[in-house]
Amino acid sequence: MDLIITKDALVGGVHFFENDKPNLIAQKALRVNLSDLAAMGAEPIGYFLSIALPKEDFDIDSWVSSFTEGLLKDQREFGWQLWGGDTVSTTGPVTISITAIGQKTKNHNLTRSGASPDDVIYVSGNLGDSAAGLLAIKKGIDIPELIERYHLPIPRVELGRAIIGIATSALDISDGLMSDIKHICEQSAVGVEIFLNNLPVSSSLKEFLKSNLFETKHDYSHLIWNGGDDYELLFTAREKDKSNVEEISRTLGVKITEIGKITSGNKVILYDTIGKELKIENTGFSHF
Amino acid sequence: MDLIITKDALVGGVHFFENDKPNLIAQKALRVNLSDLAAMGAEPIGYFLSIALPKEDFDIDSWVSSFTEGLLKDQREFGWQLWGGDTVSTTGPVTISITAIGQKTKNHNLTRSGASPDDVIYVSGNLGDSAAGLLAIKKGIDIPELIERYHLPIPRVELGRAIIGIATSALDISDGLMSDIKHICEQSAVGVEIFLNNLPVSSSLKEFLKSNLFETKHDYSHLIWNGGDDYELLFTAREKDKSNVEEISRTLGVKITEIGKITSGNKVILYDTIGKELKIENTGFSHF
Repeated sequence: MDLIITKDALVGGVHFFENDKPNLIAQKALRVNLSDLAAMGAEPIGYFLSIALPKEDFDIDSWVSSFTEGLLKDQREFGWQLWGGDTVSTTGPVTISITAIGQKTKNHNLTRSGASPDDVIYVSGNLGDSAAGLLAIKKGIDIPELIERYHLPIPRVELGRAIIGIATSALDISDGLMSDIKHICEQSAVGVEIFLNNLPVSSSLKEFLKSNLFETKHDYSHLIWNGGDDYELLFTAREKDKSNVEEISRTLGVKITEIGKITSGNKVILYDTIGKELKIENTGFSHF
Repeated sequence: MDLIITKDALVGGVHFFENDKPNLIAQKALRVNLSDLAAMGAEPIGYFLSIALPKEDFDIDSWVSSFTEGLLKDQREFGWQLWGGDTVSTTGPVTISITAIGQKTKNHNLTRSGASPDDVIYVSGNLGDSAAGLLAIKKGIDIPELIERYHLPIPRVELGRAIIGIATSALDISDGLMSDIKHICEQSAVGVEIFLNNLPVSSSLKEFLKSNLFETKHDYSHLIWNGGDDYELLFTAREKDKSNVEEISRTLGVKITEIGKITSGNKVILYDTIGKELKIENTGFSHF
């Protein structure tokens, strides 16, 4: 077996709200790391946790009690354990660092470098829910289905393991689809064509986008392709493996959607609903 | 081989001064973790680093440049490498989390649970320098030899590996000799007798203790046995292995001092210079 090690830090006020429920903070911290393991096709086995807690204006007992409840829940859910770490105090916000350890069979790898022209691009689950949930929290609007996706991403651990040998490349979407897919393009030396019409969007998000809840005319549909925090798997596979991918989707009960194609060259293109190329900006988009 | 994984966090204003030189902060962060590996007899091979940096009132470029210089220096010094991690921002102090990975031959272990009555207790290097250095910094007195020990502990990596098969128990002293030795007592179900006269004290510290630099009559000699931050190895071995321990000391050029004996029962006793038992308090001591 190979060991896979990944490490991610989360800071109060940056990666989570300081008044978030500690059990949800714990679960998100674990799940962000589990998603990294998923993208490498690894089975989670254990993790180390360092946590810095404020000394002042902070009910340490009730916070830690709720936090450990969250850890325990996701240890059971994902079949792994806390192996060590330490607890320190800080004058700053709660700061969590997790080192996640996974294992996988030797030479059974998921990488970002194996995509070739004509490979099909797939994504798991739905996109944009989490980013819309975050926006809803910031605006003080309660949309439970979206907010829950923000607090509790679903790391695609089983899917990651299932696509080993079929996926030619894979990663988990943390910064947003169009931002993260560039890593595959760079490391596989290919381009991509993605079709907005094909992107999987939940009914909650569709409703939210139509609702004008914020009483502005701003179009938030870019959250779908560059909202980030999705923690869905993005992967590519040969045309001939389409039926295998469908079979995996059925077996695991995980929605998998074909969203585009790998191309030769190095262009990263998103086509809008009427087939025009969308220009992707850092924080939004504009039509050409 | 076995992999050994250890994780330690350091927070600005708690574990180091925020105006400490970043290269020294980096080296200390690595060395604290290296000391953990040393206490397990492991050879350091790589580490992961998470670092949270302030956004405001902070010259990130010059800080990071100095910090990485420190990392590089101790990567070379100890023959290991940075394998990954992440950088995030924080509204609080600089927060560093290191996950250190070491390896050792299977079944070649250093534990805390193998000490038996009549085993000899050894300690490497000198005790108390680091704690006195910290005190000197706080009081604004420049005593370079002691302050350097505070900033740059010497992880006893080679010694840790050399005593495998000879040491019946081992740990690294981070909280102070008399505090940490309790771990061996508990896990080995034994007691100890330590002799203050035998504790290794540097000439710099002896001078410092005599100097009354702080213009008080307070006796700081307790820093020797409960100052902490020593990162020296404490270990036990059978009487019959005395010459082996002496040979290791000569070969590695590391001072090793016999400081006491393991006893049956569970008493943790420190005898003072005239053979009376010292009562160890949390923050100092008093005579019975």
